[in-house]
Amino acid sequence: MYPSPIQKLIEQFSKFPTVGPRTAARFVFYLMKLPKEEVEKLIKLVSELQNKITLCVFCFNPFEITGSQSQKKLCQICSDPRREKSLLCVVEKETDLLSLEKTKKYKGLYFILGGTVGTLKKEDIKKIRAKELLERIKNPSNFIRGGISFKEIILATNPTIEGEATVLYLERVLKSLKVKVTRLGRGLPVGGELEYADEETLSSALEGRK
Amino acid sequence: MYPSPIQKLIEQFSKFPTVGPRTAARFVFYLMKLPKEEVEKLIKLVSELQNKITLCVFCFNPFEITGSQSQKKLCQICSDPRREKSLLCVVEKETDLLSLEKTKKYKGLYFILGGTVGTLKKEDIKKIRAKELLERIKNPSNFIRGGISFKEIILATNPTIEGEATVLYLERVLKSLKVKVTRLGRGLPVGGELEYADEETLSSALEGRK
Amino acid sequence: MYPSPIQKLIEQFSKFPTVGPRTAARFVFYLMKLPKEEVEKLIKLVSELQNKITLCVFCFNPFEITGSQSQKKLCQICSDPRREKSLLCVVEKETDLLSLEKTKKYKGLYFILGGTVGTLKKEDIKKIRAKELLERIKNPSNFIRGGISFKEIILATNPTIEGEATVLYLERVLKSLKVKVTRLGRGLPVGGELEYADEETLSSALEGRK
Amino acid sequence: MYPSPIQKLIEQFSKFPTVGPRTAARFVFYLMKLPKEEVEKLIKLVSELQNKITLCVFCFNPFEITGSQSQKKLCQICSDPRREKSLLCVVEKETDLLSLEKTKKYKGLYFILGGTVGTLKKEDIKKIRAKELLERIKNPSNFIRGGISFKEIILATNPTIEGEATVLYLERVLKSLKVKVTRLGRGLPVGGELEYADEETLSSALEGRK
Repeated sequence: MYPSPIQKLIEQFSKFPTVGPRTAARFVFYLMKLPKEEVEKLIKLVSELQNKITLCVFCFNPFEITGSQSQKKLCQICSDPRREKSLLCVVEKETDLLSLEKTKKYKGLYFILGGTVGTLKKEDIKKIRAKELLERIKNPSNFIRGGISFKEIILATNPTIEGEATVLYLERVLKSLKVKVTRLGRGLPVGGELEYADEETLSSALEGRK
Repeated sequence: MYPSPIQKLIEQFSKFPTVGPRTAARFVFYLMKLPKEEVEKLIKLVSELQNKITLCVFCFNPFEITGSQSQKKLCQICSDPRREKSLLCVVEKETDLLSLEKTKKYKGLYFILGGTVGTLKKEDIKKIRAKELLERIKNPSNFIRGGISFKEIILATNPTIEGEATVLYLERVLKSLKVKVTRLGRGLPVGGELEYADEETLSSALEGRK
Repeated sequence: MYPSPIQKLIEQFSKFPTVGPRTAARFVFYLMKLPKEEVEKLIKLVSELQNKITLCVFCFNPFEITGSQSQKKLCQICSDPRREKSLLCVVEKETDLLSLEKTKKYKGLYFILGGTVGTLKKEDIKKIRAKELLERIKNPSNFIRGGISFKEIILATNPTIEGEATVLYLERVLKSLKVKVTRLGRGLPVGGELEYADEETLSSALEGRK
Repeated sequence: MYPSPIQKLIEQFSKFPTVGPRTAARFVFYLMKLPKEEVEKLIKLVSELQNKITLCVFCFNPFEITGSQSQKKLCQICSDPRREKSLLCVVEKETDLLSLEKTKKYKGLYFILGGTVGTLKKEDIKKIRAKELLERIKNPSNFIRGGISFKEIILATNPTIEGEATVLYLERVLKSLKVKVTRLGRGLPVGGELEYADEETLSSALEGRK
């Protein structure tokens, strides 16, 4: 019903996470009214994104390729000599890494899994970087210089059904390595209420009391 | 905290309507993982948008400039000989026009005001196309061929505070023209309930009974 | 899990409209902590409710039986000589009557239907006061003194699916009476937006413009 | 606007937790239509509530006074010989006790504080059973037979601002007793997501990993 260039762009924006056709239409009308320079700025940023950003060869965290860093293949965290290189925290996605960094309580390395395992079907398992994780734990020195070896792997997936299934799968994968595998503590979150908490969370809160 | 190319793009997306920084970050990670061709397709559509789309000289409805239409300056609705050219419906924005078209009950012309008047301050009034509306009602033939003259102007702004203020302002502007000015009917919407309706809506529903 | 007197009371409160077991439990703990006089006051009010309140013989509106009114069988509205006795407004329930009264725009009489007709099954139809409505329209003088006759019946059910089905049923019932039957006007409610309105509401708003 | 017996009852129900005047009105109309026996059943349950239920002299948990129990002053939990009498869990309210019981993981005793301390003002502190708690920890044998003494006091208030303030106050009160004082474990709840967790919850989840 909209002219074709508008309709096509609505379709593209509708593929963005959380965006439906009505919001996508608002995006297009917003762009139509934007000064030409602003549109060009946006286009420049989008087009440079994939060129200026690369994924860390160790942890898959995206980082900027700057002049001096162009040969570097490790992100700021992996190349930081002050990080504890015996600790590895496995997260589902980039924003989870950022959330943990904001606490300033974790000083080890990360690994971005790139998703979760819903079922244990092969095509599902292929979507996450399980093989890559195994390689990095087995031979970290292939990726990061200095004779490092991991003493603890923290499986920091979300305590959701998908996150739990992923932990179960990864525990099986990592079993042979005989490395200590831990999970984030369960309990009541800040602002939570006993009355509305599920039994599993409350049980964990009781067990984890201190 | 994100690398600069990501951070800058998050800032741009945060300016999009309804988008906050968290959603903007999800947009950027979505784009980072998108196949290069898909990103290029999106960029092409965004960059062509302002070139391929023009605003109708009469009603300000955006429409596609096609080869044969390149000389045309009127949108499909304004150039459609079957539309009733004595009726003009003034709407706030493009999506309102589309909503009314979907009812298939309105056969007249439209005029897109481009906003509402919150207060009656000069800078506020400048933002809407009040002067343009007046010109088009006074001399429609300057824009659309054929000796047309409007018999009714429907002020179809939203029945919100801003929409009502805009109607009051436009009624004053159009007063001198002695053309019939109407407003959309008020009443209970489909699915509405008397118990939760405000008194004004209920009064309108009572008066408008039939 | 709670002691039996608490559990039983939770069950009773859970039958109250909009109340689930958790809220019902909060009600019981609230009552347990209430001063004895307050509990007694509540009990008195509840126990007197059905004795002190009676339903109007004409419109089924609940009203208080006071000393002087004990012989009266009509509510304040039905016995008010200033009400227009040629107009009858049929509503689903007591609160709808109150909502319409608050507008101060309606001066006729009411009839409380006591529900809606979901389907046209016999057991469903029995639940509403359709027969009673018919009697009152045919012979209003059997209920209210003075030679009154209705010139218009306003079917003011909610514009929901159930309300619409009820209108269709009542229109059939009232057909033989040859009295004018109207419905509340449809349109955009105060605060509504064209963009989010359904097509039927918008069509009504267009048709009902003035 | 409603008849006085209805209006007065609406006012009483409006004092119930979570109930506003509109819901209160629905309660009254629900009661008006209820069969007389049902109303009487409700009244009986409400009037017996305070007579049939008493508060445990040790933990303040409400329990039913039955014939054989009429001399008893302890609730089922406090009088259960299988409960671990060295553990005391302090909760804000009755429903929190119930939530913890449902986990079947806790085998000690409880103490219902009866609220939280918002500020440290005297009138605020009076509202909670701090003095009673202190007495029971100091001399449990005054309330429960058998030479019991507590080895751990779990302060299981909600991890909300009020709950935290209460913990700070109670820790000060209990300091002199030299008994071990613990709190429920913090962490991610079941179904929680790292992305939306606050920094304190994430820090606790990291520290509490296992």
